[in-house]
Amino acid sequence: MNTLFLTTDDIRRITRHVGLNQLLDELIVRLEKAIGAFDPEVTIVPERDGFDYHHPFPGLLEWMPVMQLGEKAVIKVVGYHPRSPVINGMPTILSTVSAYDTATGHLMALADATFITALRTGAASALASKHLAHPDSASLGIIGCGAQAVTQLHAISRVFKVKEVLVFDTSEVAMNSLQERVAPLGLRVSPTPLESLIARADILCTVTSVDPGAGPVFPDLNLKPWLHINAAGADFPGKVEVPLTVLHRAFVCPDFPGQALKEGECQRLAPEEIGAPLEEVIKSPGDFREFREKTTVFDSTGWALEDMVTLDLLIECANDLGIGTPLNIESLSEDPKNPYGFLGDLGSETPAGTGKVRETARV
Amino acid sequence: MNTLFLTTDDIRRITRHVGLNQLLDELIVRLEKAIGAFDPEVTIVPERDGFDYHHPFPGLLEWMPVMQLGEKAVIKVVGYHPRSPVINGMPTILSTVSAYDTATGHLMALADATFITALRTGAASALASKHLAHPDSASLGIIGCGAQAVTQLHAISRVFKVKEVLVFDTSEVAMNSLQERVAPLGLRVSPTPLESLIARADILCTVTSVDPGAGPVFPDLNLKPWLHINAAGADFPGKVEVPLTVLHRAFVCPDFPGQALKEGECQRLAPEEIGAPLEEVIKSPGDFREFREKTTVFDSTGWALEDMVTLDLLIECANDLGIGTPLNIESLSEDPKNPYGFLGDLGSETPAGTGKVRETARV
Repeated sequence: MNTLFLTTDDIRRITRHVGLNQLLDELIVRLEKAIGAFDPEVTIVPERDGFDYHHPFPGLLEWMPVMQLGEKAVIKVVGYHPRSPVINGMPTILSTVSAYDTATGHLMALADATFITALRTGAASALASKHLAHPDSASLGIIGCGAQAVTQLHAISRVFKVKEVLVFDTSEVAMNSLQERVAPLGLRVSPTPLESLIARADILCTVTSVDPGAGPVFPDLNLKPWLHINAAGADFPGKVEVPLTVLHRAFVCPDFPGQALKEGECQRLAPEEIGAPLEEVIKSPGDFREFREKTTVFDSTGWALEDMVTLDLLIECANDLGIGTPLNIESLSEDPKNPYGFLGDLGSETPAGTGKVRETARV
Repeated sequence: MNTLFLTTDDIRRITRHVGLNQLLDELIVRLEKAIGAFDPEVTIVPERDGFDYHHPFPGLLEWMPVMQLGEKAVIKVVGYHPRSPVINGMPTILSTVSAYDTATGHLMALADATFITALRTGAASALASKHLAHPDSASLGIIGCGAQAVTQLHAISRVFKVKEVLVFDTSEVAMNSLQERVAPLGLRVSPTPLESLIARADILCTVTSVDPGAGPVFPDLNLKPWLHINAAGADFPGKVEVPLTVLHRAFVCPDFPGQALKEGECQRLAPEEIGAPLEEVIKSPGDFREFREKTTVFDSTGWALEDMVTLDLLIECANDLGIGTPLNIESLSEDPKNPYGFLGDLGSETPAGTGKVRETARV
């Protein structure tokens, strides 16, 4: 019984076949449907857990599980190592995601999750903006010009007729290189001083790597009364991006309330200051339409449901296109009572003297 | 950067090259060393967690993480679906194990874990027996003749000069088929009535699938005063195998105390009735030598450290022998700020009309 592996090369081939815009559009449609149908009795999302360490360098290895009852469980494992680019010449984030059949425990698929995470985080902001931003929003502001800036502005530009994209980063290198990264998407960005950016934006995305304790990343100054903010950078206790005064007057909509209270903008709010989560907004858009004229904040900390929907889409595309690398990983002994059955005839066992084996001292 | 996949076929080739006895002997040596060196500040073992469900059929999907600080994290995922053999024609247990580099988050390896689990559970009982059973033990009793019976008796026979193996199962089919399964190991077993088995055994392994609440699986009747019991079946709240009277007079040695208190024989004991864990026994064997003449119980619930040691051994053998299936799973964009960088030139994007994609309704 095979497991489908989607390597970074497989995902490249799928995306180029389907089209990046089309893939993202389809994801936004599916994500809206999945979030709108979310039932916590059927889709079980425990809070993420992990190892947090400081030796030899600071790092975090987290697992984010989700289960669709009677169907499958999906576990994403994310490594976050901020010093890895300098020390190892590797990305800050490496991630893989696995899907298990809950009827058998079979590992159905494993995929690179870097692209999946980037895409779903963008798609979630696009959805939140669709429901909470002013429908005529035409000016998009982006604070933080790293990897997430690309997918935020890409996804929002699929849902809104964006006329200008104003971008800012404390790093001039990052700010000035963003245009080159989004040019293949047919998008244009304008590096803009922070105060001017926040005054002109109808929709603002904060996707910074500000240190815990060092936020917010912009002042509460001349903001449009209908400004919608996608605060997608906060994902760690103490890390915040939005001024408290803005949070206090805004409708604050978390993706995953339990987690947002620990790691998101919501960590600075009392429970009664936190608005309905995204699933309620999507389920009853009419109840929240008034907020399109008001200040709103989508507190996006990352929800395993989003990973599951994105992985499902990629697996479907892979199967349709015959892309992917199948491997028969798991042992399916003909006799489940014989753990050595898969080894075949042991009579022909030929110790090879690898130097790894020696006799155990008997008692 | 590659991930090493060890399929069931790769593990077969490794085992046949190295030799099954030699592999198990080496594992017992390494496990004793690793447990003897165990430092909870360096080897972090959180309790396992998972999804427990009853729809459409009862099942359990658990993850068992362990981290060797400054080196790697290993996560085993185990599916336990007792009705799967009947409903799906699949084994009750399917399992895979992954290793991550904690300097980068890189998925270093993924392997089938069914064989790994069977082998390490046997090796742990062999080690506990080495330190707690009477050194002249020659009669081995096995209650429960499923998959675990094979590795229990195999591992213990590598450490003790076993003269007779007495076996019992409530299923005659299981009991009578065990001989055939262990014959390739050069071992002989004798199906034996339960009361006679427990009266003759110097070492007893309980590896049953008794239902929670239905234990114990043998009576406290005519046991040898130096009997050592490896209770390896209890792994679930309510599931127990050993009579309480035996536990009360025995030195009870858990593998992983926190877990044994929840799922093992220890769940029926007060904290002060529980003896030192296996790591302490292995670290200071002299302090526990007196118990070799007394009744002892190894409460084996399964410890992620054992999985890590076994996976390490297989990976080392795979690398030495050039066995294993490398795949480049993870995206290593040349520009970590560009989540689309790995896609190459998007200008040549060719939507293939898979029917999976459609335009998102714009706002």
